[in-house]
Amino acid sequence: MRTLAGTALLTVLAILGISATCADYSAPSDTGEPGVKVVLVMHGGAGVPAKMSPALVKKHEAVLAQALRTGYAALQKPGGTSVDAVEAAIRVLEDSPLFNAGKGAVFNHDGRNELDAAIMEGKEHRAGAVANVHILKNPISAARAVMEHSKHVLLVGRGAELFATTQGCTVVDPSYFWTKERWRELQRALEEEKKGHAEVFLDRRHFGTVGALALDREGNLAAGTSTGGLTNKRFGRVGDSPLIGAGTYADNATCAVSGTGHGEVFIRYTVAADVAARIRYGKQSLREAAQAVLDGLPKEPGGVGGLIALDRRGHLAMPYNTDGMFRGYVTSDGKVYTATYGSK
Amino acid sequence: MRTLAGTALLTVLAILGISATCADYSAPSDTGEPGVKVVLVMHGGAGVPAKMSPALVKKHEAVLAQALRTGYAALQKPGGTSVDAVEAAIRVLEDSPLFNAGKGAVFNHDGRNELDAAIMEGKEHRAGAVANVHILKNPISAARAVMEHSKHVLLVGRGAELFATTQGCTVVDPSYFWTKERWRELQRALEEEKKGHAEVFLDRRHFGTVGALALDREGNLAAGTSTGGLTNKRFGRVGDSPLIGAGTYADNATCAVSGTGHGEVFIRYTVAADVAARIRYGKQSLREAAQAVLDGLPKEPGGVGGLIALDRRGHLAMPYNTDGMFRGYVTSDGKVYTATYGSK
Repeated sequence: MRTLAGTALLTVLAILGISATCADYSAPSDTGEPGVKVVLVMHGGAGVPAKMSPALVKKHEAVLAQALRTGYAALQKPGGTSVDAVEAAIRVLEDSPLFNAGKGAVFNHDGRNELDAAIMEGKEHRAGAVANVHILKNPISAARAVMEHSKHVLLVGRGAELFATTQGCTVVDPSYFWTKERWRELQRALEEEKKGHAEVFLDRRHFGTVGALALDREGNLAAGTSTGGLTNKRFGRVGDSPLIGAGTYADNATCAVSGTGHGEVFIRYTVAADVAARIRYGKQSLREAAQAVLDGLPKEPGGVGGLIALDRRGHLAMPYNTDGMFRGYVTSDGKVYTATYGSK
Repeated sequence: MRTLAGTALLTVLAILGISATCADYSAPSDTGEPGVKVVLVMHGGAGVPAKMSPALVKKHEAVLAQALRTGYAALQKPGGTSVDAVEAAIRVLEDSPLFNAGKGAVFNHDGRNELDAAIMEGKEHRAGAVANVHILKNPISAARAVMEHSKHVLLVGRGAELFATTQGCTVVDPSYFWTKERWRELQRALEEEKKGHAEVFLDRRHFGTVGALALDREGNLAAGTSTGGLTNKRFGRVGDSPLIGAGTYADNATCAVSGTGHGEVFIRYTVAADVAARIRYGKQSLREAAQAVLDGLPKEPGGVGGLIALDRRGHLAMPYNTDGMFRGYVTSDGKVYTATYGSK
């Protein structure tokens, strides 16, 4: 039997990447004992450059911590569900200009912000998603409306906007999403493209997707992901974030997953569903499964990124293969942890 | 060691559903012996009503047989690949008004034909898909263009149409897709809706998606699916067909899969990827995996449909839980088989 303090220590050590502890970290917890477990985990994108200024890193982590506290508060409310927590937490990052989701989203080739989001709950595998939307302030809330108030899972473009509007989702003028930094990124991408550097869209800076996973008192998992996709994307491109089993997945029997990375590769390798499948059929631990999926992605054309995974016992994994990944979690006793670089 | 005739007989018996044979049917074939194997398998939708007239069934099967012969011919050409076969075979069904893909697609709520398709190859997991397109004569060819000539996997709406046009895909006036039978179906659906029968879209008649899987001489698998989706769908709804791991999947190490059924449920349960995962991690046979995935779908709200699966040894599975499913295959010696009802 593990003490509360011991469990908390293991969790802290695990996030610091102490390897001997990591192995234990994914083992089944002692049953029947109330323990400190992770109840909410988030990422703010795996594309953090190695040389971001410490002040800017701190700024991102502060918003991430605020999102974690907001999600935790949603969980603490009477009847608060994992879906409530995921939505509330992601809305904070969507509303911040620092992250590539909602306000602060990157621009597509046509100079528009084109947003995608998905949400899924693990008990009944209900899911909702929107893609290619331009006027919805909080795409994650539109995704939730699709899940809860439509018979469909994925709605795209103007149809999705129309549906979300009928559901009371907040509509904004597309100019709301404009930010100077993202606009400059597009101009740089367009210049690179003119010079014939077509690979510019793979620039790691652009993996700024955000995601959240939560575990509520009923033992139900939920996952959500929201993104502006890739700078300079075109032709109505949809990435992995709004696709169930690619960038977003939740299943109480295995885990919840949210991805951030080169979306096309995440789609082709059904990354989120593969983490769950390795646990379900391959009897791998959460941590083994998450790491194996990431390690198994092809190096070309850029199987780079990261993911977060959370299971029903409150265990988590947060592997990434980029320089940094904004990430953090809250434990059941309300302690908030954030990190950007360091042990994976 | 099994003789050629013996293998062929087993294959025929298997499709007829003789159970003792079925069990053997999915077992590994004798290695090192050239044998008759399935090289192309197709479905024309799982929503066949129990009481379709024999003449109409025959008509469907005749077109399906023509598609199978066309795909087989593509495989037989020097250098013919599984991707060539899948595309060629599906184009035949897209061009026929009998199937819910290309010409003959169902109408959405706005009275438009809104088409989705995906293609994937199993060697390098390359994939391409289009959704919500209205002017592309053969969506499966547009999906292939996305796979081979873009850096993206999924393009939707006008962006997808624009990209396909730049790739030389044939563009038609949307009226090309109009058929009397499908128009009447929409009118009936709208009337039912007025009466408050919101579930009308679940009518089994509408699962008319088409799909094809092929195995070429290089041992590479490919999968493709094309559909008009659900009659009376709205809000830019995208179903499972164009989503990798939901309605379409190919992986040389496990199998190729194409689904047909209630798309939302197929998305939520990542049906196509789950068949592959059960083989890869759960060591299930192709047939066990395909059946288990279908059996595991929730009964509410309508986990109904079917799927086809093909592995690298030329084994196939074609389970369905509806009254009938148009289906058929070609063996490596060019023999064509089709069926609609009967043993699953």
